[in-house]
Amino acid sequence: MKPWKRIDELDTWQSLQNRKAEVLAKVLNPGRVAERTIPAGGGLDYSYAAMDADEATLAELGTMAVALDLPGQYRAVATGEVMNPGERRMVLHHIARGTPCGPVIKDGRDYRAFYESEQARANAFAEKVRSGALKGTTGRRFERVVQIGIGGSDLGPRALYLALEQWARERGRLSLRASFISNVDPDDANGVLSGLEPETSLFILVSKSGTTQETLANESLVKVWLSKAGMNPSKHLIAVTSESSPLARNPGYLDSFYIDDYIGGRYSATSAVGGVILSIALGTDTFKAILDGAAEADRLALEPDLRKNAAMMDAMLGIFERDILGRPSVAVLPYSQALSRFPAHLQQLDMESNGKRVDRQGNAVRVPSGPAVFGEPGTNGQHSFFQLLHQSTDIIPLQFIGFRKNQTGFDPEFEGSTARRKLNANLTAQIVAFAVGKDDIDPNKCFPGGRPSTLLVGDELDPSALGALLAHYENKVMFQGFAWNINSFDQEGVQLGKKLTSTVLAKDGPSDPLLGAYARLLGAL
Amino acid sequence: MKPWKRIDELDTWQSLQNRKAEVLAKVLNPGRVAERTIPAGGGLDYSYAAMDADEATLAELGTMAVALDLPGQYRAVATGEVMNPGERRMVLHHIARGTPCGPVIKDGRDYRAFYESEQARANAFAEKVRSGALKGTTGRRFERVVQIGIGGSDLGPRALYLALEQWARERGRLSLRASFISNVDPDDANGVLSGLEPETSLFILVSKSGTTQETLANESLVKVWLSKAGMNPSKHLIAVTSESSPLARNPGYLDSFYIDDYIGGRYSATSAVGGVILSIALGTDTFKAILDGAAEADRLALEPDLRKNAAMMDAMLGIFERDILGRPSVAVLPYSQALSRFPAHLQQLDMESNGKRVDRQGNAVRVPSGPAVFGEPGTNGQHSFFQLLHQSTDIIPLQFIGFRKNQTGFDPEFEGSTARRKLNANLTAQIVAFAVGKDDIDPNKCFPGGRPSTLLVGDELDPSALGALLAHYENKVMFQGFAWNINSFDQEGVQLGKKLTSTVLAKDGPSDPLLGAYARLLGAL
Repeated sequence: MKPWKRIDELDTWQSLQNRKAEVLAKVLNPGRVAERTIPAGGGLDYSYAAMDADEATLAELGTMAVALDLPGQYRAVATGEVMNPGERRMVLHHIARGTPCGPVIKDGRDYRAFYESEQARANAFAEKVRSGALKGTTGRRFERVVQIGIGGSDLGPRALYLALEQWARERGRLSLRASFISNVDPDDANGVLSGLEPETSLFILVSKSGTTQETLANESLVKVWLSKAGMNPSKHLIAVTSESSPLARNPGYLDSFYIDDYIGGRYSATSAVGGVILSIALGTDTFKAILDGAAEADRLALEPDLRKNAAMMDAMLGIFERDILGRPSVAVLPYSQALSRFPAHLQQLDMESNGKRVDRQGNAVRVPSGPAVFGEPGTNGQHSFFQLLHQSTDIIPLQFIGFRKNQTGFDPEFEGSTARRKLNANLTAQIVAFAVGKDDIDPNKCFPGGRPSTLLVGDELDPSALGALLAHYENKVMFQGFAWNINSFDQEGVQLGKKLTSTVLAKDGPSDPLLGAYARLLGAL
Repeated sequence: MKPWKRIDELDTWQSLQNRKAEVLAKVLNPGRVAERTIPAGGGLDYSYAAMDADEATLAELGTMAVALDLPGQYRAVATGEVMNPGERRMVLHHIARGTPCGPVIKDGRDYRAFYESEQARANAFAEKVRSGALKGTTGRRFERVVQIGIGGSDLGPRALYLALEQWARERGRLSLRASFISNVDPDDANGVLSGLEPETSLFILVSKSGTTQETLANESLVKVWLSKAGMNPSKHLIAVTSESSPLARNPGYLDSFYIDDYIGGRYSATSAVGGVILSIALGTDTFKAILDGAAEADRLALEPDLRKNAAMMDAMLGIFERDILGRPSVAVLPYSQALSRFPAHLQQLDMESNGKRVDRQGNAVRVPSGPAVFGEPGTNGQHSFFQLLHQSTDIIPLQFIGFRKNQTGFDPEFEGSTARRKLNANLTAQIVAFAVGKDDIDPNKCFPGGRPSTLLVGDELDPSALGALLAHYENKVMFQGFAWNINSFDQEGVQLGKKLTSTVLAKDGPSDPLLGAYARLLGAL
């Protein structure tokens, strides 16, 4: 790996310090909305008209993106260089959905061919489940599919499933409803199982290493539940794992589908981690369309000109907000109930990737790195935390997502407009209210404005748009990691907790008295 | 209302500026865990041992709490003074569950008696639904109850329902499952309705004013859905509203239950807004126990000594983190899957209450006010955003919640321990890892520690503990608002968006070209 620079090591960094937030009330107008809207793939457009960076700032950010060789670093990822230096691994999630820079062949393996062949096996398996050809212990067809996984094996696939559940139902493609068990809290598994019949339930165990504590504990609970009901667990379980894991080629599972160490958990939704359950629940065509949308966004992200590269623009504007304007959080606000869990996925994607304090050379990062990310769907958020977003002492940059059409057809008019039109009128109003604000003689009714936002907008939240949306954010986070010279693909910050947990669970309890004190308080001994 | 001071107007404010974060690795020990744990009601304990405020800081915060008369301001709330000055209203959510400072009688109305009588009517109605005495259009008993509401009419009641759904199921108290429709996005209502039968569905329309746009649009959609299926909507709908609303005493509803202007939306979970649906779904005894737990926490919050008042301590420590140590966000991390939506409720409660920039006298607040609040259940968060919490350039104070026992009984041992023990061993480990950290020769594997946290811990998440948990946070947020001299009970920040939305939805569209440009981009004309 080349000794890439951090953004604050560039000569232009000092001049960027002098850039101020543009006064949006003065500059935001219809012309700017038209000029600052660019394609993001899958039919989506990315609009950054309401971001408070002026033309000179954009020019400077563009120069810095070139100086940092952001597109080149992405090409290094996409061609299979070792871009996860801490773990000495390639980073191949793009290859799970395409070959933006051609094939990646190492040590005799063509990775695109490998991921495709696993998805082809998953497709064949999914068709057997959907058609009813594959049956459970008692000969009944499967009606529910349940993913057992945590972190990236849960958040991304769950967000994508929920994003398309109603879409697929309306189009007759929802053959099996999906559920998810993630938390080691047994109330999670018991809650999900209370709505299932053992006979008709198929479980997907997802763990790359095959050693994830929570996932194995939940598998064990589910197996006891199946056995107690007279089922043969091996007829109700499949695995998604790596070829070297104890779950691979194991007679305890109907089948196993493989990923490898080059697909990080939070980047795995377009691999078999998402592919198996989504193909079973929503159909193989649906998952294929997600991949195609993601691949289109990946191709667009190769564009070297910042003003034509939505993911890179989003990344650089985010760094301007975080490091220059000093804004430590980002709110993701999809005006789409189907995206209810998409912010939780982005929270992992962004915060686990860029919540770091040393760069790829092991030096302390000298500027703030990844922001805190949170969000809920609109209009719900308007009746909740938007108060703070509008009138707080702090400014939180906003990322809106919207669609022109519903997923479902039933939308009777009420008081002169459909609910869809009301929804999008609200989104329109919020963008403008945040940017422009409003004066009032009563200071409590005064809106300062100057709250910047971006907008990702498409016709409909269909599989292709969803795939592009997912990839847009993956690529944005990747570009930000490059700019901070952070390794966005490891997560050493999870290790200490794991180690201390083992100490608490050791036969004689923890020798450390502090761990002992908290373990006693929590009844964990 | 008295001219109360802002915390930064106190003489002691300057000396507080000199207080530094305590180095937790040096001071956190079992003795401190024992000393810094105090009761919070409902069987909960509040532990602030792992907060990085030293004894001198605590003493200073205690002095400031007295100087600001925080307990006195709470007594003013609880005795019916006009403590929502902007809207010139009393603030009576405490009275919905008790009389911490005696009865509140104004203009001939005894408010405790009024709220109790509404809950008694709700109880009688709930029993008729649960017993099957009340039936729908076709004579079948109701099997599902659906709340139509948004903001406080959705988040609090939904969080409480989910918190006790499995608890009630295991104890045979879950007579009807509950669902919630909130978003004006019609994909929300259509998604919920796809899992319901019109004949057996009872809807609760919740809107204090009776004019909430989203809620009325969803009611309209639900009524069309009921009518299309041959149902008489008025036999499937009840209302929770104010006595002066168009929904009150309206023949379109089976019955109406009343709240008033003195119960703010985000504080309404213990009023009929939460009481009707929770009593129907989980039983009247269950809701009564929630109220009793909340009332106990309310009584404890009257304690003038900071070191004996969990809610006030939590409030003052939060201000120390926010204003002195400069930490703008808080993460709420319940180690309980049942609390999956509790952070979303707290997000509204806190951010809508204290995300303000002018004080109660209309002056600009000169210190940062309410923080951004987000969170997800553990252990899930450990596999997601905890990376940033452990190793980021920023420090985010943490609020853990844990319980010693499961809600559900099925918890087979796996690899030598139950899942419950694994869950709480993880929580133990995280508190210590965040506070103490760990050195490593590899800077990427180094944990700086110094990440402060609080812990609310109880035996079991039962109705009483849940009520206390809810009230603890309500009171914490209230005390913080007092300290910042903010009106925590209004939400003027939601008004501008509403107004601009009407403009977009006007017959000829918006006259403002900027609104027009965004409305066109979003297809909202």
